[in-house]
Amino acid sequence: MAEVFDLVIFGGGGDLSRRKLLPALYSGFVAGRVAKGSRIFLTSRKGLEGSSEGWLKEVFTETPPACPVEKQDLKDFSEMVSVIELGLVEGGADWEAFRDALKTDDQDRPLVHFLAIPPSLFTSTCELLGEYGLNSGRARVVLEKPLGNDLESAQAINADVGRYFEEKQTFRIDHYLGKEAVQNLLALRFSNILFEELWSGRTIDHIQITIAENQGVQGRKGFYEGTGAMRDMVQNHLLQLLCLVAMEPPARLEADSIREEKLKVLKSLKPLEGADIDRNVVRAQYQAGAMFGEAVPSYVDDVELDTPSNTETFVALKAHIENWRWAGVPFYLRTGKRLPDRFAEIVIQFKNVPHSPHPDWGRGLNPNRFIIRLQPEDHLALRMMVKNHASKSETLKEVEMNLDVAGDDSTRLGPYLRLILDAVRGDQSLFVHRKEVEYAWRWVDRIIDHWNASGEPPESYQAGTWGPYEAHDLMTRDRREWFHETSGKRAGR
Amino acid sequence: MAEVFDLVIFGGGGDLSRRKLLPALYSGFVAGRVAKGSRIFLTSRKGLEGSSEGWLKEVFTETPPACPVEKQDLKDFSEMVSVIELGLVEGGADWEAFRDALKTDDQDRPLVHFLAIPPSLFTSTCELLGEYGLNSGRARVVLEKPLGNDLESAQAINADVGRYFEEKQTFRIDHYLGKEAVQNLLALRFSNILFEELWSGRTIDHIQITIAENQGVQGRKGFYEGTGAMRDMVQNHLLQLLCLVAMEPPARLEADSIREEKLKVLKSLKPLEGADIDRNVVRAQYQAGAMFGEAVPSYVDDVELDTPSNTETFVALKAHIENWRWAGVPFYLRTGKRLPDRFAEIVIQFKNVPHSPHPDWGRGLNPNRFIIRLQPEDHLALRMMVKNHASKSETLKEVEMNLDVAGDDSTRLGPYLRLILDAVRGDQSLFVHRKEVEYAWRWVDRIIDHWNASGEPPESYQAGTWGPYEAHDLMTRDRREWFHETSGKRAGR
Repeated sequence: MAEVFDLVIFGGGGDLSRRKLLPALYSGFVAGRVAKGSRIFLTSRKGLEGSSEGWLKEVFTETPPACPVEKQDLKDFSEMVSVIELGLVEGGADWEAFRDALKTDDQDRPLVHFLAIPPSLFTSTCELLGEYGLNSGRARVVLEKPLGNDLESAQAINADVGRYFEEKQTFRIDHYLGKEAVQNLLALRFSNILFEELWSGRTIDHIQITIAENQGVQGRKGFYEGTGAMRDMVQNHLLQLLCLVAMEPPARLEADSIREEKLKVLKSLKPLEGADIDRNVVRAQYQAGAMFGEAVPSYVDDVELDTPSNTETFVALKAHIENWRWAGVPFYLRTGKRLPDRFAEIVIQFKNVPHSPHPDWGRGLNPNRFIIRLQPEDHLALRMMVKNHASKSETLKEVEMNLDVAGDDSTRLGPYLRLILDAVRGDQSLFVHRKEVEYAWRWVDRIIDHWNASGEPPESYQAGTWGPYEAHDLMTRDRREWFHETSGKRAGR
Repeated sequence: MAEVFDLVIFGGGGDLSRRKLLPALYSGFVAGRVAKGSRIFLTSRKGLEGSSEGWLKEVFTETPPACPVEKQDLKDFSEMVSVIELGLVEGGADWEAFRDALKTDDQDRPLVHFLAIPPSLFTSTCELLGEYGLNSGRARVVLEKPLGNDLESAQAINADVGRYFEEKQTFRIDHYLGKEAVQNLLALRFSNILFEELWSGRTIDHIQITIAENQGVQGRKGFYEGTGAMRDMVQNHLLQLLCLVAMEPPARLEADSIREEKLKVLKSLKPLEGADIDRNVVRAQYQAGAMFGEAVPSYVDDVELDTPSNTETFVALKAHIENWRWAGVPFYLRTGKRLPDRFAEIVIQFKNVPHSPHPDWGRGLNPNRFIIRLQPEDHLALRMMVKNHASKSETLKEVEMNLDVAGDDSTRLGPYLRLILDAVRGDQSLFVHRKEVEYAWRWVDRIIDHWNASGEPPESYQAGTWGPYEAHDLMTRDRREWFHETSGKRAGR
């Protein structure tokens, strides 16, 4: 039985709400995961035009949910949704009405405040929630990135929110953690001896984590300039994925233990400093280029600047985790806009066999790879060598054992629904602890500070390519290569 | 380019020749693996009726080859085949004619003598081959089981054959070793670090090897009575498969190194003696029962005996290999007739995870299994646990990553062709060394001698069941189970 809850989406008419949260909630409702009798409040400064049913219909035309929108379902769903006009800077009659609207006899019914608003409004919103008594007991708050743009601002946000919500009420969302393949990573690692047994520098050569986007900075121009890929992607998503891959087995697979282990990874990340940064971190910005047969403008043109910008749209870096398990195993992280493909993937690359016992095998002997693909589809693959029996000689070929982890409805409902329902249940396993955010900033800030101090511009890459030469070199000088170079060969993709 | 060769099938009109060798050679011919210009001689004591084309047509109607029999192909193939009337006890005009027929200017052209005849004729045949100068240079001899029925008789055969053929000319066939999945086992183990890394008692709980037949003793009554499953299946096929699974990495994947390593395994097999045999070896004979909805007779009725027989049609045993890699890892071997299913399978069962970190996982946490299926299809599967996302709770489900290793023509040509062509090329990798045969007999003889000394009859099992209770108990008392019990649940089978 799904649990009845109240959800307030602050910024209910905004982009995140329209494109992600509402379609996910609708699919969840149709699938029976969002219980009838739940209430969804959309706050908006100026109200929303039309009836909530008419407005939702429009929203779902823009971004269709995973399931078809049937008339009756839409009507039933709309009845759960109320629009509330609400300023987020100071209280008043609107807040009194809001407080009254949230009243319920059921003091156990979860009340989730999803702050789909700019971080600059977090403090005043939380303060008002406190002032109107909406922060206690059944209340939880969900925060979406960006959680600051450096350690100091992140600490300030955490402190401000923390004045009104305890850590156990605070749900910092990273939607990558809601993906099936990521959750499966934990299940795989800790319920299969064969993975955990192989999961260390004894057997693993290196790990690659890539989040590649083919889009530019559409729709986020104002935000992106001055933020850049390091803050937008590395500090949160890439480091979170790194934590899940690298962490020690938690005592129990529940929030506190998992978050403690992830934090230990962040604390063990070798700080990059000075010349190390120049050598091991590549930043770059896309220039005009071509994608899918069409010319695309440069970053500077995309954000409509008249002067050059130092904002990086691409980061590739090599990190080390200083503990027993991972000593000597590089973690290569990479993200960028305007790359040739859109995917998110973790590649565990194993070592070469110590000796090739067959003279004909020689150079064709690829190392084993375990690939966790989070995007566009949830997918696990194990690449290994087998006998090439199409050939008359004793050669090998590489094959992929595949596991499709997105086989049913529940995954198509998407990570946001999963995470909202976790917040409803009060399960913080897939949410980021305050300290994680802060330790990640600590590590990232050192790099950004070094860049700022150097005053040098980022490298350049042509839109539609895999980033600058330096990113390629980061691998090849270690006699390794980014996995996208072979991914074109993947069967059935 | 396929190599031109001469092949003599002694017993060319016999069962093995008609049912296995000729259909395999025909398919190989059509597929271009048996070179045009090769010659195939079928010896027969009494000649064969009809033209060789007509006779072959009949043979292929009985046992259709893997590819369709087209008129022109059959004609071309028939032209390569000659029938030779030949006694195998003493020489004379027929042998002189035979010798002349084999003459060739090409002294490099391989000449393979395939002895598809009872072992009682091996000695005289080899002697005659020697006498007529057909045992030297380009000549090789292929022997099919049974190679003796105990150590002494095996040694006698090896010694007799060895007087006329050197060990490197002698190809002892075990057709299980010609199967794609078995050859892939070597490729997998030694070209993928992830398998070799897991391949020991540190990670593996136990190994099961099963060859299950649903047939009775049809067509081999005279041979089977007094032979039994231990001699017919365990001494050769099961111990050979055990060797391939268990052997250390050979210095090179070529005949001498592989056979040395297999021999080391046989030498490391812990000898079973006395009470150990009673406890760890189960033998049984099938009683009347039902299969596929029809009544089937008992073994004694199948072989038309008036008195009870002590011949076992089922063996299950637990063996240990005394070396560093396998200390403490039991190898459970099992074979039987009139079992509910026909399959040959090696199951590598890994240990349980040392700790289940999720309270909901509990009892549903199956250990990982790597399954190498040789029969009826060539197939590899890795069974592991993943998140059950169809479920709302955090439960797991077991899934199979599959690898079909029988994806093309060459495998459908079958193991016999593969092995004949290996003999043509002089590659002994997949053939059994004299010493292997003898060490296997040494181990098996101890058990058979103990049975004979005890005078006790074998256990009984009903035809159509998985053998006697004692076989089940062999596992359950170790808190393990035979894998067939879960195999019904396998997806897509």
